[in-house]
Amino acid sequence: MSADRDPWLLTPGPLTTSDSVKRAMLHDWGSRDRRFIAMNAEVRRRLVELAGAAETHVTVPIQGSGTFSVEAMLTTLMPREGKLLILVNGAYGKRMAKICSYAGRAHVIYETAEDTPPDVAEVKRRLAADPAITHVAAVYCETTSGILNPIAEIAAAVKAAGRSLLIDAMSAFGALPIDAASVPFDALAASSNKCLEGVPGMGFVLIRKSVLERCAGNAPSLSLDLHDQWKAMEGNGQWRFTPPTHAIAAFHQALEEHAAEGGVEGRGRRYRDNCKILVDGMRALGFETLLPDALQAPIIVTFRMPADPRFRFQEFYDRLSAKGYVIYPGKLTVADSFRIGCIGRLGAPEMKDALAAIRATLRELGVESGAPARVAAE
Amino acid sequence: MSADRDPWLLTPGPLTTSDSVKRAMLHDWGSRDRRFIAMNAEVRRRLVELAGAAETHVTVPIQGSGTFSVEAMLTTLMPREGKLLILVNGAYGKRMAKICSYAGRAHVIYETAEDTPPDVAEVKRRLAADPAITHVAAVYCETTSGILNPIAEIAAAVKAAGRSLLIDAMSAFGALPIDAASVPFDALAASSNKCLEGVPGMGFVLIRKSVLERCAGNAPSLSLDLHDQWKAMEGNGQWRFTPPTHAIAAFHQALEEHAAEGGVEGRGRRYRDNCKILVDGMRALGFETLLPDALQAPIIVTFRMPADPRFRFQEFYDRLSAKGYVIYPGKLTVADSFRIGCIGRLGAPEMKDALAAIRATLRELGVESGAPARVAAE
Repeated sequence: MSADRDPWLLTPGPLTTSDSVKRAMLHDWGSRDRRFIAMNAEVRRRLVELAGAAETHVTVPIQGSGTFSVEAMLTTLMPREGKLLILVNGAYGKRMAKICSYAGRAHVIYETAEDTPPDVAEVKRRLAADPAITHVAAVYCETTSGILNPIAEIAAAVKAAGRSLLIDAMSAFGALPIDAASVPFDALAASSNKCLEGVPGMGFVLIRKSVLERCAGNAPSLSLDLHDQWKAMEGNGQWRFTPPTHAIAAFHQALEEHAAEGGVEGRGRRYRDNCKILVDGMRALGFETLLPDALQAPIIVTFRMPADPRFRFQEFYDRLSAKGYVIYPGKLTVADSFRIGCIGRLGAPEMKDALAAIRATLRELGVESGAPARVAAE
Repeated sequence: MSADRDPWLLTPGPLTTSDSVKRAMLHDWGSRDRRFIAMNAEVRRRLVELAGAAETHVTVPIQGSGTFSVEAMLTTLMPREGKLLILVNGAYGKRMAKICSYAGRAHVIYETAEDTPPDVAEVKRRLAADPAITHVAAVYCETTSGILNPIAEIAAAVKAAGRSLLIDAMSAFGALPIDAASVPFDALAASSNKCLEGVPGMGFVLIRKSVLERCAGNAPSLSLDLHDQWKAMEGNGQWRFTPPTHAIAAFHQALEEHAAEGGVEGRGRRYRDNCKILVDGMRALGFETLLPDALQAPIIVTFRMPADPRFRFQEFYDRLSAKGYVIYPGKLTVADSFRIGCIGRLGAPEMKDALAAIRATLRELGVESGAPARVAAE
């Protein structure tokens, strides 16, 4: 159970990927190579298909991390005189506000607590009250807590109000369903390295073609101009600037494996199973989840910090890491916490082994229960 | 000589890398993993050392292609009220002007023909004539033609005029010497995938620390803010946003191999040998280089298009590609041309084999000589 193998990454990413995905990187590709161009085209096609958006949207890939994709989405889609309403219940919503501040784009925030989804009635009220708002940005699964936001209801409200919806689906896309026909969006950003189980190095934005056609000149960044990237790619199939060829080859393989697993449904099922094993097992050890099950996305789970003073998180983390299981610290403001992910190339055996390692580590630390301190309200 | 192996990439990048560099990507790393953080720190340390800048500069890595690094450099280093003089003799100089236009940064251009280096006396005159110019941007080796620009003389002139020099050393760094003590620069951008022979997916900027400390608030992009990236990395050794872990592991291995080859001197020697074999062999076939030898960097060579009408470039390219040698089209405005690169994990045997493949291809096409049409001036 120790580290002759790579550690299992029970994190929000970078994640554990399959050997076959990594082995796809054992080749060098010229960026003008016809096979590479065909591989890139297939990746783009598969991604819009995953959202049921092949007829309406195009995939625009972009170098960099997920944040690069989100920034590219916001700044390419929003005209300079636009105004963005951002639904915030965690760090990734806040980051979108920061992106707007950098780029000098007008924006307002509707913030709820990290364990609370936005109230869609309130979204409607805010849109009705401020006609200057042109766009709404929402996070599908907010990785800060692992909360599932009501994206379908948000999309319906935004559409009814005649505004444009931009979705950060980073940690959800590929495992949680989203269908462009029933959840109308103008753009959706995600990355190669979350539920699609590629390696990090690129992201992508699905964009409604009729909208993208009007986005020339919006972006304040050449590198992150998705309209320019799209026009070039439609022209000759090539990226404008050196593509992360190895990451794309890995992503191409990862999408094959995603399809072989049964697509979004199959991938989502495995993650839900992982999540259930994890949550049940942790609860049996006394731990408490931050979120009620109804709000918990099967992506990453936030656990409240145990009350037992013998539980010191860094030591818990280090000992688990030495056993080959990497977890993640908390990022919450509402509660002291840590996180364990359910995504990446992991299944029931690995989740059960992880629980066994957690049990063993608690014993080593002399911690009898993972129960958190009773909060005043209870 | 055909494609059971990957084709040899005789291009400006992505390039052929060693098997051991690619095999470094067969592991998944957590971005908070201590070993990953140590690997990242070593990459950063080695890069400033390669420029003799360990005492004065810091390495700030950034996700994306080389253009992302150049944009990050220009927009982080230049204050919003700054003015940039850009020395242009090819597409990469022009791209810097485009970046400034996107970001709304004042800039002026001093342009020479693609086969002509800037006249340093003229640079001095322009700096003296326009006190509003705060920064100068120059390209060390302009990949458009393969020309070597007089970076030491430019640096001396910029320093004497009390301005700040920003260098695009993308296709030069690691093979052509640059020493911060004798070639003063405030920032230098390059990438993992050129002469350092890593895989594409990240770049880096070497920045004078005393200058970077004053750059907070300059960047109009969160993703490309090198000051913010630097502050975060100095704090906990981590990237702000998901790093391209596999590309970094490959880069770490590539830097080991660079050192083992004798660093900049050893790498440069191999490329000079590659370049000499290529140019001598092509001249023996009648081809003409765009540049005189004194201006030719040993990175990529531009050849004038042969006059023989049986030489059709696309067919020449496709037949060479089928034999396992990928070359590159021209990008020049001054002459019809194509390019062949000398960089990447290639040595004398591969260059000689490439020449044999070129000879065979000319025979197949019935082309007797690579000689270009005589130009009117001759």
